[in-house]
Amino acid sequence: MFIASVSAGMETLKVFCDISLEGAAGKRLLDGIQPHELIFPKKKLASILSEPEPDPAFAEAEIAFGQPDVESIRNSKKLRWLHISTAGFTRYDTTEFRALAAERGLVVTNSSSVFAAPCAEHVLAFMLAQSRKLPESLKSRAANGDAEFLKLREQSASLRGQSAVILGYGAIARELVAFLKPFAMTVTAMRRHPRGDEGLPMVTPDQLEGVLAKADHVLNILPENEASRDFINATLLAKMKLGAIFYNIGRGTTVNQEDLAEALRSGHLGAAWLDVTSPEPLPENHPLRLEKNCFITPHTAGGHRHEWDSLVDHFLKNLKRFSRGEELADIVISSENR
Amino acid sequence: MFIASVSAGMETLKVFCDISLEGAAGKRLLDGIQPHELIFPKKKLASILSEPEPDPAFAEAEIAFGQPDVESIRNSKKLRWLHISTAGFTRYDTTEFRALAAERGLVVTNSSSVFAAPCAEHVLAFMLAQSRKLPESLKSRAANGDAEFLKLREQSASLRGQSAVILGYGAIARELVAFLKPFAMTVTAMRRHPRGDEGLPMVTPDQLEGVLAKADHVLNILPENEASRDFINATLLAKMKLGAIFYNIGRGTTVNQEDLAEALRSGHLGAAWLDVTSPEPLPENHPLRLEKNCFITPHTAGGHRHEWDSLVDHFLKNLKRFSRGEELADIVISSENR
Repeated sequence: MFIASVSAGMETLKVFCDISLEGAAGKRLLDGIQPHELIFPKKKLASILSEPEPDPAFAEAEIAFGQPDVESIRNSKKLRWLHISTAGFTRYDTTEFRALAAERGLVVTNSSSVFAAPCAEHVLAFMLAQSRKLPESLKSRAANGDAEFLKLREQSASLRGQSAVILGYGAIARELVAFLKPFAMTVTAMRRHPRGDEGLPMVTPDQLEGVLAKADHVLNILPENEASRDFINATLLAKMKLGAIFYNIGRGTTVNQEDLAEALRSGHLGAAWLDVTSPEPLPENHPLRLEKNCFITPHTAGGHRHEWDSLVDHFLKNLKRFSRGEELADIVISSENR
Repeated sequence: MFIASVSAGMETLKVFCDISLEGAAGKRLLDGIQPHELIFPKKKLASILSEPEPDPAFAEAEIAFGQPDVESIRNSKKLRWLHISTAGFTRYDTTEFRALAAERGLVVTNSSSVFAAPCAEHVLAFMLAQSRKLPESLKSRAANGDAEFLKLREQSASLRGQSAVILGYGAIARELVAFLKPFAMTVTAMRRHPRGDEGLPMVTPDQLEGVLAKADHVLNILPENEASRDFINATLLAKMKLGAIFYNIGRGTTVNQEDLAEALRSGHLGAAWLDVTSPEPLPENHPLRLEKNCFITPHTAGGHRHEWDSLVDHFLKNLKRFSRGEELADIVISSENR
């Protein structure tokens, strides 16, 4: 399958891949990788979110596609580019790793382009299911005009004119803001370092209080890192508007779940919709499981039918850019953005 | 409360109102109606969708706001304008009534402006709940990486790039098309008489077949009338794409429900999401209740917190237009559009 004429003058790069690509997506990667070379670990991983182990094959790789462990990266003398197969990159989002990347000139990209739209659609599905009272209405046998019918209609709402604050501004938030535009909502986003090109009002974490007090919907898309752990806690929840709805499609660990359960129990929050928890799944006797206004999906926000094909295509496009020396898509860590 | 100076030179009109307006909305109407006069029927109705009975008070009215019976309208010598308190107007959507309206110069408006956005949001909630597999995912206890988790993620989808056909193009469809714009879907609508100003590809009922065969989502917003009864039947369902999702927020009677149940049972349709059925609610042993991919809400699509206030405001705005001789909003029947 190796065609010398195509690869003439083009560097053949060794790509370590530690994700298990079934059937069509695997073939897509094998076909698309040429003239470069794939190196597989001894033991393939079952899930893209499993904890990885050091693998001797890694030492040869100039590129890694998947979820390699930090130790292997530290020991590598050849790695120039890491492409993460998820949107989240907790494992690498540390001061130490950023320093390592800067020292080695290592660039890190993620797969946020692949997951941004389905994640944003998932949170919009949550918002509309809440607004239209789907969990209650789908169970109802109300008859036209009866008390339950009138109550369900009164409790239903239009998003039009309501307000939302998005915690964490990245690829998912950009998609979400576009989806919310036709609803004419008041949308503000929080980001550590607003750039001014976001196209909506931005606040920094220390400016959040005033915005939170007015938001009907609080949408958490924060990744997990040293700064975000337990960010949504009793203090922050107390600043939210009475009856506000809280959503989490970021990471479970960014929320103090006992505090959230208490905010639901007390009636301060109207409801919570969570795609991520800590741990996943939550045990049946967890306080959040006992709250009737807490709705949980099992980390399916980014999932979609063509997920694996899209992951491969996204990587291959970036590989083409890399081999041509062009700027990569979805850079999350580089020596420029420490 | 009658202020002579305000009404000087302005005709005082008698407005028959047969809807039961509780508390704030009732006060809003009483306050806003001046200098005109409200006439109430002897017996107030419990629901805006109840079947009305002739009321002797009606004979005096020049304007009616609510759901008066056709017999009273036929007997009236004074009625010039009927403002219906719902979006649906089945009772009046007949050849006979249109002829009567034309003969009397009676104009009929409805409240579609009040219900259009929440109805469109309801059907978008359905689409996203289906696409993100909310009914299944909210019940799941899947763990990251297990078979159920992988299956749920694979079954989840992004609306992006999918196709939809809207049956019935009016105020709700206009809102829906705006909501769907950021998803970059292929959207076509069906209307008996396309005008060319709809801003999306339109087909007439006889051109529907080709569009149906390609649509991932079939969105029914048809009102009930002589032409639409049983419109969605076995013949039409057979023309839909394998796995298509059917939605109904129009009227239950536009669908042959036995045929729909069969299309679900056979697996030809992927799912059905219905806000309207015939009757409402469906009996527990109805074939549609037995289909696990059939999701039903109890006619709550148009409902929202400020529904009654909005209904009153919409009528009062139209009343102002009427008394000034301006064109009314939401005209559904007039001598011009028989």
